[in-house]
Amino acid sequence: MKIRVVEDILSANDLLAEENAAVLADRSVLAVNVMASPGAGKTSLIVQTIDTIRDQIRIGVIEGDIASRVDADTIEALGIPVVQINTGGTCHLDANMVQGALNQLPLGDLDLLFIENVGNLICPTDFALGEALKVMVASVPEGDDKPYKYPGMFAAVDAIVINKIDLLPYVQFDLEGFRRLVVGLNTDVQVFEVSCKTGEGVEAWADWVAQKTERFTVSREQSS
Amino acid sequence: MKIRVVEDILSANDLLAEENAAVLADRSVLAVNVMASPGAGKTSLIVQTIDTIRDQIRIGVIEGDIASRVDADTIEALGIPVVQINTGGTCHLDANMVQGALNQLPLGDLDLLFIENVGNLICPTDFALGEALKVMVASVPEGDDKPYKYPGMFAAVDAIVINKIDLLPYVQFDLEGFRRLVVGLNTDVQVFEVSCKTGEGVEAWADWVAQKTERFTVSREQSS
Repeated sequence: MKIRVVEDILSANDLLAEENAAVLADRSVLAVNVMASPGAGKTSLIVQTIDTIRDQIRIGVIEGDIASRVDADTIEALGIPVVQINTGGTCHLDANMVQGALNQLPLGDLDLLFIENVGNLICPTDFALGEALKVMVASVPEGDDKPYKYPGMFAAVDAIVINKIDLLPYVQFDLEGFRRLVVGLNTDVQVFEVSCKTGEGVEAWADWVAQKTERFTVSREQSS
Repeated sequence: MKIRVVEDILSANDLLAEENAAVLADRSVLAVNVMASPGAGKTSLIVQTIDTIRDQIRIGVIEGDIASRVDADTIEALGIPVVQINTGGTCHLDANMVQGALNQLPLGDLDLLFIENVGNLICPTDFALGEALKVMVASVPEGDDKPYKYPGMFAAVDAIVINKIDLLPYVQFDLEGFRRLVVGLNTDVQVFEVSCKTGEGVEAWADWVAQKTERFTVSREQSS
């Protein structure tokens, strides 16, 4: 009985996620679901990416949090369209929340939409939002053993951005061992090493997202 | 209907948590539910606390993770009784899982039991385990804005241990502002500042836990 209810919720979510994906495809907007632990640097990465590619790519943001709108305020200060979702306790975004936010965004004026999920390495992987790409931010001070403990997240994503590499001299983190673990869980994953504080490595990541966005836009224009 | 099922699960959990609390009280074991983001340093804090007070307090540990037993191996290497719970995807421990682990521990030989929850700042607060104290580990590199974003966790705990203060010179973290936010959410909370890497501040925290354990043991002996 319990399991049945959970299945119903998940399949209802999948249907809404497909609707979101169709709306985004129709407007040629590439949506990226950004997931991480609390404080890994999701917002900082989005801010750095905006700074790096905003001249070539039109970007919007959906911010997901249990409470507060501090992240949305940060994005809004950059002059970027943003909608804050407060889940009010729910530990992940779902497709219904994102559908509400899509209705408030000028999708026709966007190429790329970052959807910053709630800080949580577990629950967000179970709920499709309609995104084209899933990205995880892993931060150096969290330690290099996280792939053992949260294999579902590491296996689910298209790219992993290792953030806070400026702290490598001060914490124990085996970068090569971490990469080996990650690739063991997810053969095709792209791995980037960045510091959102110093800007190191951000360009390679931002170029990758920009290329994905341009290809998505072109493929949508050809199919329409 | 959905809400009803969730309520049923929660109240069933509360009943099991009361059973756990009764078993622990009967054996005069103080249980501490340790919660945090992934990588904030829960296991490191438990290891440091064991090192500091193991001569005066008999300690056991329950380790909760989605997958792996790396943390249990770390504790076992210290010669401390430990049980690893793998939740297999569930984003928090619950009272039923803990009940199974209690049955495998030599409770009669323990004074203090650390229950390390799954790394998650949201879901664990909804599930009582039978613990006498709730403690949160917050780490400096996660940033000082977390009380805005995860108010439920900050409000629910008896103590907050701010870990990784050795990284304060390298990251932006307003310690005084953070303390003000925390006390705004939770007037009675104890706040400790530690570095599990250098050992700074660990003694004050460990003394507090030791005192709580001794008082719990004495009060149980008087009431029996």
